[in-house]
Amino acid sequence: MRVFSSALLQARLGGVLRGDADKKITSAASLENARADQLSFVVGQKFLQKASQSDAGLLIATQAMADQLDRDCLIVANPHAVFAQAVVLLHPAPLPASGIHPSAIIAEDAHIGADVRIGAAVVVERGAHIGTGTVLGAQCHVGAHARIGAHALLHPRVTVLHGCELGQRVILHAGCVIGADGFGLAWEDDHWSKVPQVGRVILGDDVEVGANTTIDRGALDDTVIEAGVKLDNQIQIAHNCHIGRHTAIAACVGIAGSTRIGAYCQIGGAAMIIGHLEICDRVTVSAGSFVAKDIKSPGIYTSVQPLMAHEDWKRNAAHLRHLDALSKRIRALERTAPNQANNKEPR
Amino acid sequence: MRVFSSALLQARLGGVLRGDADKKITSAASLENARADQLSFVVGQKFLQKASQSDAGLLIATQAMADQLDRDCLIVANPHAVFAQAVVLLHPAPLPASGIHPSAIIAEDAHIGADVRIGAAVVVERGAHIGTGTVLGAQCHVGAHARIGAHALLHPRVTVLHGCELGQRVILHAGCVIGADGFGLAWEDDHWSKVPQVGRVILGDDVEVGANTTIDRGALDDTVIEAGVKLDNQIQIAHNCHIGRHTAIAACVGIAGSTRIGAYCQIGGAAMIIGHLEICDRVTVSAGSFVAKDIKSPGIYTSVQPLMAHEDWKRNAAHLRHLDALSKRIRALERTAPNQANNKEPR
Amino acid sequence: MRVFSSALLQARLGGVLRGDADKKITSAASLENARADQLSFVVGQKFLQKASQSDAGLLIATQAMADQLDRDCLIVANPHAVFAQAVVLLHPAPLPASGIHPSAIIAEDAHIGADVRIGAAVVVERGAHIGTGTVLGAQCHVGAHARIGAHALLHPRVTVLHGCELGQRVILHAGCVIGADGFGLAWEDDHWSKVPQVGRVILGDDVEVGANTTIDRGALDDTVIEAGVKLDNQIQIAHNCHIGRHTAIAACVGIAGSTRIGAYCQIGGAAMIIGHLEICDRVTVSAGSFVAKDIKSPGIYTSVQPLMAHEDWKRNAAHLRHLDALSKRIRALERTAPNQANNKEPR
Repeated sequence: MRVFSSALLQARLGGVLRGDADKKITSAASLENARADQLSFVVGQKFLQKASQSDAGLLIATQAMADQLDRDCLIVANPHAVFAQAVVLLHPAPLPASGIHPSAIIAEDAHIGADVRIGAAVVVERGAHIGTGTVLGAQCHVGAHARIGAHALLHPRVTVLHGCELGQRVILHAGCVIGADGFGLAWEDDHWSKVPQVGRVILGDDVEVGANTTIDRGALDDTVIEAGVKLDNQIQIAHNCHIGRHTAIAACVGIAGSTRIGAYCQIGGAAMIIGHLEICDRVTVSAGSFVAKDIKSPGIYTSVQPLMAHEDWKRNAAHLRHLDALSKRIRALERTAPNQANNKEPR
Repeated sequence: MRVFSSALLQARLGGVLRGDADKKITSAASLENARADQLSFVVGQKFLQKASQSDAGLLIATQAMADQLDRDCLIVANPHAVFAQAVVLLHPAPLPASGIHPSAIIAEDAHIGADVRIGAAVVVERGAHIGTGTVLGAQCHVGAHARIGAHALLHPRVTVLHGCELGQRVILHAGCVIGADGFGLAWEDDHWSKVPQVGRVILGDDVEVGANTTIDRGALDDTVIEAGVKLDNQIQIAHNCHIGRHTAIAACVGIAGSTRIGAYCQIGGAAMIIGHLEICDRVTVSAGSFVAKDIKSPGIYTSVQPLMAHEDWKRNAAHLRHLDALSKRIRALERTAPNQANNKEPR
Repeated sequence: MRVFSSALLQARLGGVLRGDADKKITSAASLENARADQLSFVVGQKFLQKASQSDAGLLIATQAMADQLDRDCLIVANPHAVFAQAVVLLHPAPLPASGIHPSAIIAEDAHIGADVRIGAAVVVERGAHIGTGTVLGAQCHVGAHARIGAHALLHPRVTVLHGCELGQRVILHAGCVIGADGFGLAWEDDHWSKVPQVGRVILGDDVEVGANTTIDRGALDDTVIEAGVKLDNQIQIAHNCHIGRHTAIAACVGIAGSTRIGAYCQIGGAAMIIGHLEICDRVTVSAGSFVAKDIKSPGIYTSVQPLMAHEDWKRNAAHLRHLDALSKRIRALERTAPNQANNKEPR
């Protein structure tokens, strides 16, 4: 556990300290759960009461908030960003030791950059390239001729298959698989025949990929994830997809083959997108939605069923099988209704 | 393969044996598939015929059922529970050998309890704690300062990341990832900035986690799975979720960040639950349902579409885009209908 | 990188070469992206223009297409199949070296067939059987007494748990887990009790399993995937399922316990199928659909919601909670409508 005095935190983070400069701070916590040796932060007038009741030993706050609080404060212009820096300072993630762990198995002709950290039981295959300052957690696998850029962080047990290319500062979480074969099949007489999958996966700079997410290599061309894209856990991205820069995709999403998603999109959790579609820039797909058509205008799109008590659902859902008949019955009634003025059919 | 005589099974399991005490039994099977050297069981009058036609060498049954069957029987009060014991006896799961496999890589300062079994190519990082009698299957990874309680069973290739805390008798299946970073992002000018994720995952006693399931660490506070919770395969639990004791969650479920699910709930397969919700105790969510609101009363909740032949679906689904217009047309008809008594609009 | 002359490609692939026999070809690419040292192919009149504009150094084409193209061509009867052969020739997947990598940990009594390739950090447990010519990528794990047939290809980091049986020419992708415990629970007084899972997973010949897919072992009997079945990534197949031969299942599908799916079916991505169902041969389930009933006739089945702009969805979805009331209001109107001839209620 690291221990910082309030004064040392101020020296590292900037801002103006109000209160006991010698107070010992060991970690960061939320306002609700912080103890006397912990740091928290407050942004927004609505959290004022929580802040004044918090047991936190030190609060990061703006001058305006600090003026309303009888607490030790580190006063800064942007408490949220400074708190994030403080969290990294107080809670450094454990990394493998400098250099290459003796149990790692590195092909002779692999290129290993300067200042790497390579953990236990890592396997780096022939011709692979590991950039300067990159970290490979325990049990990672880097396939033949794969290239990982500088200052990347691969958490334990990440698999990057042969020939894939990753940019700088990429972060990959445990269990993700970059570059498995796409699902390419051709029906031949009486069985499925495998279509060779020889494209690569290209991940741009600053891409982050969540735990147990899978990104398939392209069939012939590459599967491309542009710079700044953030992918959560358990996502499936099929062969030949193209995801535009700074798009964020939440957990459990599936994207079928050859679909192109634009830049600055946000795809909600568990959304499913079929193959060979084009989704333009700045589209938001709501969680749980199913996308089966191109989307050509920015905006929010949705296709989920509302939840009901099961008995209500049973009564209502039965009619989904008869909507067409229901609509025809309304039309029939309209034809015979006394007041024809009401009979405007929409569309 | 183990071989038990009927007499030895009776000695180990209790009950009264009727039939050949020397019969050799090698394994357990269902009534339909059992052979003459296999044990099966029968509960419920409706399975009487299947039992009388089964080739099983020995049946576990109540006295009442045994009286109707001309077969070797082990007669007990609770055949289901005794059969489960017999299955464990006949089919012991293979475990790593006692002690620590020479290929395992254990940090010098890790605490390893008595009577552990640690398999090949396991990595235990510095400061980790492995409880008494715990089993780590081949290729498991236990991160720095993680703590695993006594008598836990980690199947091969499980990843428990740094600082996470697991209770006693926890069972983790292959490929699950405990403690990856949550999906914490803040938009800054022109890109996503990573919000540090420094909370832990806390698993209570007797929790079971399925294959390739992912549970993210909390952002600041912890992600908490209470005692007795059972999670199936391919589940995603996001940062800061809290799952109450003895809740069971089927495969492919996704639960977004900071959602709290009560105790004794049952979440059906592939259900998706958005973030920051509260679901009370004793709620059942049907398989495939989408939960986007708090649930405040126990009961069964559902939101799925009924399956149709594709042609029927095309005809019906088109109207889903026009339900609001349909409803307005009905209201218009009601206004002009001759018999006003029928025109009660619900809700 | 391999380099072939056009003449050498013709010698290996057959067909008639038209153009420069000495041209150097290094790889295969799509018509759009091919460079002058790359091979591509053209099938179908509608791709004629793309082919004539392509920079590809050599095109595989039929005589009829070649006659319309002023390009170097390898003329064959079936360009698609010959191109697939060419792709494998030009892009051989890197395999582990022949024999057993010194870092692999192989139980003394494991049976290792002739001509295997076993990669770094592989673990093969006691009594396991690896067939002739089979490849185990780095970090694979084969459990005790598991059997893998001849000429199988396990990509890096595949887990096959104890006792499972795989046929010949099986292909398993990174991160898949074959034979984890099924989700067998029995409620006892105040907690869930684990039902032992002692069946196996049986994979027939030529089965392919995608990255991070999980197939659970049977509870007592086996989970069976018949010959020629193709499974994409992130699929969950629960205990005791039976999948008929040559069925193809796209990514993110979940199939609950004891369901039987027939032969020659196609299950679209993210479809969810509940337990204890029977689906007959030659059924297509559309992507994203939810199957909660037996399917007894071949055909296409669907149950998805159409996507809408979020504001339209809000207006329309509200009525899903009142479809039953809507239907009753229509019936009331019909009872009082002047022209009774129109009032035929369907179904």
